[in-house]
Amino acid sequence: MIAIQAYLQQKASHVEKRLADMVDMPRVPDTLREAMTYSLLAGGKRLRPVLVLATAEALGSDEETALPFACAVEMIHTYSLIHDDLPAMDDDDYRRGRLTNHKVYGEAMAILAGDALLTKAFGVIAEGVLQADLPPETGLELIHEGSIRAGAEGMVGGQVKDILAENKQVDLTHLQEIHRAKTGDLITYSVRMGAQVAGATSSQIAAVTAFAEGIGLAFQIQDDILDIVGEQEKLGKTTGSDEEKNKSTYPALLGLETSRQWVTELITEAKASITSEPSINGNYLLAIADYLVSRDR
Amino acid sequence: MIAIQAYLQQKASHVEKRLADMVDMPRVPDTLREAMTYSLLAGGKRLRPVLVLATAEALGSDEETALPFACAVEMIHTYSLIHDDLPAMDDDDYRRGRLTNHKVYGEAMAILAGDALLTKAFGVIAEGVLQADLPPETGLELIHEGSIRAGAEGMVGGQVKDILAENKQVDLTHLQEIHRAKTGDLITYSVRMGAQVAGATSSQIAAVTAFAEGIGLAFQIQDDILDIVGEQEKLGKTTGSDEEKNKSTYPALLGLETSRQWVTELITEAKASITSEPSINGNYLLAIADYLVSRDR
Repeated sequence: MIAIQAYLQQKASHVEKRLADMVDMPRVPDTLREAMTYSLLAGGKRLRPVLVLATAEALGSDEETALPFACAVEMIHTYSLIHDDLPAMDDDDYRRGRLTNHKVYGEAMAILAGDALLTKAFGVIAEGVLQADLPPETGLELIHEGSIRAGAEGMVGGQVKDILAENKQVDLTHLQEIHRAKTGDLITYSVRMGAQVAGATSSQIAAVTAFAEGIGLAFQIQDDILDIVGEQEKLGKTTGSDEEKNKSTYPALLGLETSRQWVTELITEAKASITSEPSINGNYLLAIADYLVSRDR
Repeated sequence: MIAIQAYLQQKASHVEKRLADMVDMPRVPDTLREAMTYSLLAGGKRLRPVLVLATAEALGSDEETALPFACAVEMIHTYSLIHDDLPAMDDDDYRRGRLTNHKVYGEAMAILAGDALLTKAFGVIAEGVLQADLPPETGLELIHEGSIRAGAEGMVGGQVKDILAENKQVDLTHLQEIHRAKTGDLITYSVRMGAQVAGATSSQIAAVTAFAEGIGLAFQIQDDILDIVGEQEKLGKTTGSDEEKNKSTYPALLGLETSRQWVTELITEAKASITSEPSINGNYLLAIADYLVSRDR
């Protein structure tokens, strides 16, 4: 039995320490640095960076090599949250029980802090490759893939699809397409980046990609479930906010019980794609998959 | 005598053609693609991409190799304009005589179109290096430098400094610091990228960097001069808008005549740093420098 909570906390704290170093930049206006730091160090599960680290280690790399890539993914995730919370978008005042970035620093600074984090992320990846002496072609491929998965064809496109689907009847295929882009692509990127940093073979990469796609979808369905049944104080946001915003959810389309069954199936399949590849030392990845289903926040 | 207008128009049209191809992406929601295209293909001088191409060619590279890098810089520039025009920032309704992005597509889509263009730019650089068979380390260094010059330490930081300086008395050093970051860094990056794509030596890179820093500052001073003396219809924006927004300008600090003299000196010095390096075939760069001072828009 793996102590996954302790593992997650330890990895998250390493990521947070490195993130704090990375944004402690000279030559940056104080207000901008503070706004970037406020959201970057606002806690949270750190799921994406932990996935980078866990995948890299499962494939024989070490934390030190993988850490910059973990931080880059968290910067991209954080920028997307800052921009999503803006009045023009989801108009959220609170996230994880704290005021959102624009409520503290104003809209202009929130937009720019997001822009700066996104811009920084790509430099962090490039630097990570150069400093760890990884094959530079791998670095360019990682950046190219990140640009697609985080951009118009991936995460940003997913946010647009989500906005366009508000107040509309959305079927299951469409809902999956939205989430594949909006949240799935960055989770998949995290895992694939960890694998490539470790110099994984193409069959190893295929295995962890299938794993990531499975847990990414399961994570989203679980989020929708928690939004309905979760207790407000545990989530730190208003329960039922999807319903309030008239957003389509898996429980609304499939019912709560079928949604839960699907999560279980997805996690089982995701774990199987790891265990079917004996060269992957995947104990922590398997534990993370289980953790995602058992979590109550 | 070089026909610089024809040269600029030809290069701009090549850049625009390639940009149109690059944003013609499948798997992107139509509205997002349209919003990205609207601002990316809105015309303009295309100064930054032309500088990439002209520098690369001056150092022995060819347009085809340099074109992706030129397009990447224009994507970064365009995203910054879209975000700067937002109500929370400069709140501009028009740019180059057309409605700004958010006036056509709404604020949410404008924010996301900017995010998508910035994200795309880094992928375009990575792909440009991989496809042209340039040294991959060079590609990683270009991405790292771009991340700094376009980010919190460069362009985004400059925008923050500019916002913080509104309605305040700003001295000449401070004003230069704002512009060095806000507009200078991306112009310098354009020229340095062109040079590195051409495999320039370090003394060639030093020469074009000095050139870029000179014309970048001259360009900004000239902009301030034109804001005062330009005719409204030529600029396509309200003349005197800096004054209206209570922004510090070079003419306000130095007077119009001294500002004009300084532009002339900067351009002379910038040209000298090119001509002092005989290995640079810099006729077009010199002509671009002259053009920047003579322009009336």
